[in-house]
Amino acid sequence: MRVFQIDGGWSFDHLTVAERPEPVPQAGQVLIRMQAASLNARDLIVPLRGYGRATGELPLIPVSDGVGTVIGLGEGVTRVKIGDRVCPTYFQGWIAGEPSAERFATALGGPLDGVMADRVCLSEDGVVRVPDYLTHEEAATLPCAAVTAWSAISIHAATRPGDHVLIQGTGGVALFALAFAKLHGARVTVISSSDAKLEQARALGADATINYRTVPEWSRPARDIAADRGGFDTIVELGGEATLGQSIKCIRIGGTIALIGVLSGLAPALPLGAIVTRQVRLQGVTVGHRDGFEAMLRAMAQHQLRPVIGKTFAFADLKAALDETARPSGIGKTIIRFDAHDS
Amino acid sequence: MRVFQIDGGWSFDHLTVAERPEPVPQAGQVLIRMQAASLNARDLIVPLRGYGRATGELPLIPVSDGVGTVIGLGEGVTRVKIGDRVCPTYFQGWIAGEPSAERFATALGGPLDGVMADRVCLSEDGVVRVPDYLTHEEAATLPCAAVTAWSAISIHAATRPGDHVLIQGTGGVALFALAFAKLHGARVTVISSSDAKLEQARALGADATINYRTVPEWSRPARDIAADRGGFDTIVELGGEATLGQSIKCIRIGGTIALIGVLSGLAPALPLGAIVTRQVRLQGVTVGHRDGFEAMLRAMAQHQLRPVIGKTFAFADLKAALDETARPSGIGKTIIRFDAHDS
Amino acid sequence: MRVFQIDGGWSFDHLTVAERPEPVPQAGQVLIRMQAASLNARDLIVPLRGYGRATGELPLIPVSDGVGTVIGLGEGVTRVKIGDRVCPTYFQGWIAGEPSAERFATALGGPLDGVMADRVCLSEDGVVRVPDYLTHEEAATLPCAAVTAWSAISIHAATRPGDHVLIQGTGGVALFALAFAKLHGARVTVISSSDAKLEQARALGADATINYRTVPEWSRPARDIAADRGGFDTIVELGGEATLGQSIKCIRIGGTIALIGVLSGLAPALPLGAIVTRQVRLQGVTVGHRDGFEAMLRAMAQHQLRPVIGKTFAFADLKAALDETARPSGIGKTIIRFDAHDS
Amino acid sequence: MRVFQIDGGWSFDHLTVAERPEPVPQAGQVLIRMQAASLNARDLIVPLRGYGRATGELPLIPVSDGVGTVIGLGEGVTRVKIGDRVCPTYFQGWIAGEPSAERFATALGGPLDGVMADRVCLSEDGVVRVPDYLTHEEAATLPCAAVTAWSAISIHAATRPGDHVLIQGTGGVALFALAFAKLHGARVTVISSSDAKLEQARALGADATINYRTVPEWSRPARDIAADRGGFDTIVELGGEATLGQSIKCIRIGGTIALIGVLSGLAPALPLGAIVTRQVRLQGVTVGHRDGFEAMLRAMAQHQLRPVIGKTFAFADLKAALDETARPSGIGKTIIRFDAHDS
Repeated sequence: MRVFQIDGGWSFDHLTVAERPEPVPQAGQVLIRMQAASLNARDLIVPLRGYGRATGELPLIPVSDGVGTVIGLGEGVTRVKIGDRVCPTYFQGWIAGEPSAERFATALGGPLDGVMADRVCLSEDGVVRVPDYLTHEEAATLPCAAVTAWSAISIHAATRPGDHVLIQGTGGVALFALAFAKLHGARVTVISSSDAKLEQARALGADATINYRTVPEWSRPARDIAADRGGFDTIVELGGEATLGQSIKCIRIGGTIALIGVLSGLAPALPLGAIVTRQVRLQGVTVGHRDGFEAMLRAMAQHQLRPVIGKTFAFADLKAALDETARPSGIGKTIIRFDAHDS
Repeated sequence: MRVFQIDGGWSFDHLTVAERPEPVPQAGQVLIRMQAASLNARDLIVPLRGYGRATGELPLIPVSDGVGTVIGLGEGVTRVKIGDRVCPTYFQGWIAGEPSAERFATALGGPLDGVMADRVCLSEDGVVRVPDYLTHEEAATLPCAAVTAWSAISIHAATRPGDHVLIQGTGGVALFALAFAKLHGARVTVISSSDAKLEQARALGADATINYRTVPEWSRPARDIAADRGGFDTIVELGGEATLGQSIKCIRIGGTIALIGVLSGLAPALPLGAIVTRQVRLQGVTVGHRDGFEAMLRAMAQHQLRPVIGKTFAFADLKAALDETARPSGIGKTIIRFDAHDS
Repeated sequence: MRVFQIDGGWSFDHLTVAERPEPVPQAGQVLIRMQAASLNARDLIVPLRGYGRATGELPLIPVSDGVGTVIGLGEGVTRVKIGDRVCPTYFQGWIAGEPSAERFATALGGPLDGVMADRVCLSEDGVVRVPDYLTHEEAATLPCAAVTAWSAISIHAATRPGDHVLIQGTGGVALFALAFAKLHGARVTVISSSDAKLEQARALGADATINYRTVPEWSRPARDIAADRGGFDTIVELGGEATLGQSIKCIRIGGTIALIGVLSGLAPALPLGAIVTRQVRLQGVTVGHRDGFEAMLRAMAQHQLRPVIGKTFAFADLKAALDETARPSGIGKTIIRFDAHDS
Repeated sequence: MRVFQIDGGWSFDHLTVAERPEPVPQAGQVLIRMQAASLNARDLIVPLRGYGRATGELPLIPVSDGVGTVIGLGEGVTRVKIGDRVCPTYFQGWIAGEPSAERFATALGGPLDGVMADRVCLSEDGVVRVPDYLTHEEAATLPCAAVTAWSAISIHAATRPGDHVLIQGTGGVALFALAFAKLHGARVTVISSSDAKLEQARALGADATINYRTVPEWSRPARDIAADRGGFDTIVELGGEATLGQSIKCIRIGGTIALIGVLSGLAPALPLGAIVTRQVRLQGVTVGHRDGFEAMLRAMAQHQLRPVIGKTFAFADLKAALDETARPSGIGKTIIRFDAHDS
């Protein structure tokens, strides 16, 4: 079968197509014919410097997010059956409960082999069934970006109707956070550097928007928007160094800033005093567990929520798809289709 | 009656004894004859630059923490009766629930007049009854330092038996945090720059200690202490700029760093990447509400827990007491006695 | 001023109009000119047998729910100003936090005098400001029925998008629970004995309905509706003896049954075994606190949610209004207008 | 290898020793040489009428609780290694998070084969490592009785220092609940029909005791014990029909009654009115998840807590051990030793 793999060194030049034997599902495993994958910021970093503290072992099949159909079952599998359409979970070993080093060591696309392969073999505990109403492209976007947004909005912030939520940007996590905050009944403000993208955000349900390029001190109009509550209940912080100072100025006393993103290496000066005196919670969010993924799917299916899809590429064009992810030409998730294998 | 007040300008020179008429309790109010007060780091800052954004209005009676006896009742008071010994709550208007700007605007000792007065008149909602087993000196230490530690350990961190808790230093909040973490059944590690103080911490129940002067990279031995859990469940962060980087290195994945203290103006570079990838929660803690104060008192009374008392000063010697608070000669809270009025 | 009061004994015959002197707001109090009141099942019971264990003292002004305009302020009031439209809180002394005997002893309409008076004088802590978009009739319905439903749906059940919620009947609490569950993004099933009312429930947003008169074993079709989750996440239990057994059959494992209503005296046989083996939570709900009331108002205002209004009566026609409450001719809350005093 | 199994029908007569081939660990599985087992009330019911709705398939190896040593590993096992001493989890498929029908369908000793076998083969996800300080007998008691008590005290009731906890009886779950409530810093009251057992309870840490045989209306003295809080924060309800009415009389407003035990078939009349007006939470507790088991072990190891052991029987004497469980001659868990296989 075809796979993409990083082999021989850590660089995009070492990311090549190869052949591997088809895997055979062991006891408790499922064999999946992949139909689509979706790219995240993380997929731009892994080929360059691996994952976690060590760079990790090679060869490695990259990319964590995708969808496929179950075509084989190992002994004793009960969670899924042949023909089910499933997404892998980002953390194969995080079913529910608190995070831990052991659970975080089970990420697809590094350290574990990812989904850029015609066939993927995983534990039945590492997949979730996908609602029928979603296309392959839509379903492929869910494991990392959507689950991260769900964890921030529904689990960590426990968003309720009447809450003010501020979301930074219009990237993959941001658009899911916008959609999920609306499902939870919240009033959502989106900031972006592009008026065109802000218009798209409004079309997707944003109640208010601010262009932070034209209004660098965006915390001021933001405070006005959330004045009835003294600031935002929740801010989905995706900008890091550039935005955190402004976020702390417009979060309400007692509010939650959900820190998301691949921000390694950044070390902004942080106004600790304001965090203490305003009793702010800064909550790192690292994707989420399978129970959260399934709760999110129930909510999405009930509301027939559709992810925003960007450009689509063929399997062989992974590098072009990564370029698009690095410098997106518009909003929406970048997709890989495994067309030749699709029914 | 005698009061200490800041009058005519913001400096220690403007902190003087004065006479004011005795207050008369209005409907819903209680009149308290003060018996002891206790000093916090905040009391060193208010005379210099006031409180909050604006410096505030003068004259102001300083100091938030103390204890006294109810000697007068306004109409309709039901929470306390004549003769009850009570502590004022730090935030007069925060009974329970979420914090807010309105609730934070009700702090004693700025913006509201504090306890350095022979008689203090407060809403019945702004006092709590004190268990009999505590001396006046001990009871006086509770409203700010103890409630802050309780909020961190019991409410925000929800400490349970088996948890690893790390506490920085041996100051007022730190020693309460140590005692409360032990009541919750946790294993406690204390760091300090003084071997003598670490010995005192062990005598007070600390299970492990590290001298951060002799071991600047104290996160390494700390990680070993909490190795069975992959790091500390909770760190009570009192050092700010100097310690936060080390704290992030030894907190467990998913753990909570409770940020406490008067850290205004400090802006350390913060490793946001690690906060995200290790799903750390950074939780600002600003004292706490009355329900928490009363829950803390029930726990203390059950276990007959006694605060650690440092040096004691007469009412007239407030400035000397502030000097001791700024440069403590040992561990334990600094106390003011209102002796002439004591029964 | 005019008041309705229960005087001389506990029966509807002792419920009469009387004159009382206008109250004068003391320190911390507000004087309210009442504009509308709304009736609850509780208002049918208080005239007959009082409230709580003892029947209580007479005379008593009945009815807990209403709305009016602030026309006078005692000394030091900051939460509201002259001209604000406010609702009293059901429990005058429950601001936030856990319930307690002290907090439950502060209910309007027994033991405290209620709102059937031209002027009502309350602590500023016992009122909340009402959004402008609501009519007087609509605002009057909120303190008991709406807050009870909010506490059940938003606080105790922590309802999220994708949840299955079942609501019994189409009474006051039920219709608020339906509206709030929809705001929280849930899928709502309503049961009733009337097809006409079920049609109204669907018009108000119910996703599914069951007539329990024609389907006495309604837990079976209910289970089918919530089959993807193995049963309902939350059931708002308003029927008590007649329905609890069915509820336990269609709640999901780990689900919450919110017990609501004036069910005193009823003692149904309860299948404890199923509660244990299915890890059900049975949660009594007793109205709620002021923080919850204000959170509910923020959510309602954001979504411009309007309470369902039934029949409206003049002040003098309280007994006819109570008859309508006892045997409602349709859905919606029964209202009293204080018209002569309305601007 | 030797096994006990129920075969040919549901009765104690069908519970016999048999031989089965030794299992071979598949991918992800561990092979365990059993050293001790421990009996619960459930083990008295399964041989008579099976488990759950259907009686289930035969033959079935009974008993859920035990401890053994890992002597074989399937491919890819990482959670444990050869020589580790482990307990099986009661629910093999409940790692963490919310309960569900799927997770509850994975109980050892019915529907899954239990631990009365010389060798037991389980998924690595279905075992937890046991601290060294515990004897085999002590470790064998943990999976069902101790985890149930931990779930009630630590998870559902979130017990804190200062809480009042009432525990019914001195059975297996009760004694663990007593020990865990003390670890959480609570004040514990135990009720029993035997003064001798109450004396043992005091020796194990109970702060107060009541003999409910001599004081049938035990809720009265119980209310006095918890008078400072208006009743008990938490009651561990193990008696069911006979005790629930009394429990509701002495729980505090807003308190939690943790319903535990095999109470199937019982249907006591329940005072719903009091549950509503006092906002009581009745929480069914069904053992618990693996994350809770491991948290409990960390707490036990820190405090070197030792389970109370009753009579010990040889493997072949299972029926005598079940008799002892049904009519215990004293307090403490009944144990089975697999001696011949012990190192």
